[in-house]
Amino acid sequence: MFMDWESLLGEPTSQDMMRWYQVQRLQERYVSVLDTGRLEEWPELFTEDCVYEMVPREKVDHVLRGGVIRCFGRSMLRDHIASLRTARACEPHTFRHITSGLEITQVDADADTIDTESNYVVVQTLADGESRVYQAGRYLDRVVRTVDGWRYQRKLAVYDTSRLQISSVSPI
Amino acid sequence: MFMDWESLLGEPTSQDMMRWYQVQRLQERYVSVLDTGRLEEWPELFTEDCVYEMVPREKVDHVLRGGVIRCFGRSMLRDHIASLRTARACEPHTFRHITSGLEITQVDADADTIDTESNYVVVQTLADGESRVYQAGRYLDRVVRTVDGWRYQRKLAVYDTSRLQISSVSPI
Amino acid sequence: MFMDWESLLGEPTSQDMMRWYQVQRLQERYVSVLDTGRLEEWPELFTEDCVYEMVPREKVDHVLRGGVIRCFGRSMLRDHIASLRTARACEPHTFRHITSGLEITQVDADADTIDTESNYVVVQTLADGESRVYQAGRYLDRVVRTVDGWRYQRKLAVYDTSRLQISSVSPI
Repeated sequence: MFMDWESLLGEPTSQDMMRWYQVQRLQERYVSVLDTGRLEEWPELFTEDCVYEMVPREKVDHVLRGGVIRCFGRSMLRDHIASLRTARACEPHTFRHITSGLEITQVDADADTIDTESNYVVVQTLADGESRVYQAGRYLDRVVRTVDGWRYQRKLAVYDTSRLQISSVSPI
Repeated sequence: MFMDWESLLGEPTSQDMMRWYQVQRLQERYVSVLDTGRLEEWPELFTEDCVYEMVPREKVDHVLRGGVIRCFGRSMLRDHIASLRTARACEPHTFRHITSGLEITQVDADADTIDTESNYVVVQTLADGESRVYQAGRYLDRVVRTVDGWRYQRKLAVYDTSRLQISSVSPI
Repeated sequence: MFMDWESLLGEPTSQDMMRWYQVQRLQERYVSVLDTGRLEEWPELFTEDCVYEMVPREKVDHVLRGGVIRCFGRSMLRDHIASLRTARACEPHTFRHITSGLEITQVDADADTIDTESNYVVVQTLADGESRVYQAGRYLDRVVRTVDGWRYQRKLAVYDTSRLQISSVSPI
């Protein structure tokens, strides 16, 4: 069974609600892992054959996107974190992800995948103690049910903010 | 059956949760439609006889509110979008709505309406690539069950931020 | 029955979802009470023997935390609000709390307590009409089921932002 965005407009069922909650919970874990600095757990939220990209909004429709980060597979995510841990030269900072409006845009019940979109705003606090909007954007995600629970098969962070600092190599 | 704010304080039932989810889902669609520029779909989220207003916080209790936008009925919403599309003279920008704390304040089971309040913050990114808090405020909404699903019968965007730019004629 | 963070990773049940919704609803009420100025209702969301603290991130692991606010018991919360109401000398302002990513980290079914963590960002609008990020941080909470519904037994607001103004004696 396949449901697209339009067929998802009607009266929701408790099955719809459970589906939404499962993706919501994965997103909460994702945010928690990044914002509390448990970066080594970040790759575990993806499938083995995942794609993770961070691209500016104006390039999202290009074939060659040329995003800031582009990772294929979980091992590449692990390498990215490992290099962050060794090379960390940027100013110490704290991130707080705020996500909103997790919308289910497509459900493929045979493949056990759910496509979602949601807004995000990341607030950064630097050593000076000031908090500012660091990045705003939209997640375009595909999650899949695995034997270990729901995981990201594809995660695309499309950012509006083009002022990107060195610290932007941190995953968002 | 009519339940006000106080009677909604106790132990929630699964029916309460489903009600909350239905309104939450409408709000997600609302945000998605505005932030991805699908403005023509915005009036479809309201009832035919709807009221949409955007008013500053200090005027919310006035009889003559004098808000920035005041639309009666879905056709007036369509006119508003049409005029935005033709007259769009302001600087290109991106909006990201973040909503939080969707609270159900009243349920009228006979009329099939639910009153809710929620906070919102809109982050704007201009052509310079900087993201800033554009507007903060609170939605005061009444949703109603129709044959096509839940729709807004009344939506009031009460904003705190008084610095409003030309682009503020965009619905929030 | 006791469930820690790891055992909460698997496929969620409808009982998990209901638990999440109950805590979510308490958080919505909390935000609503603070942002609409109904400060006298704030202590009612806590248990009689509660602890409420607001501490900077760098002190969260200290034994003597030395937070900005530290209240033991509901009556101390009431005193705090009463002194705010009489002494209010700071510039008029509006707060909007945005919370995100309410994650359940521990469930103690025997004690009927749920531990949660969530991000928050508070946007402040001053008399000049400008809205800015006032404070970002993370809530570390324990909620408990009482005869009156779910209440906070412990609430810790750990803030990133070190620039704190006089108005920061308002609870967050």
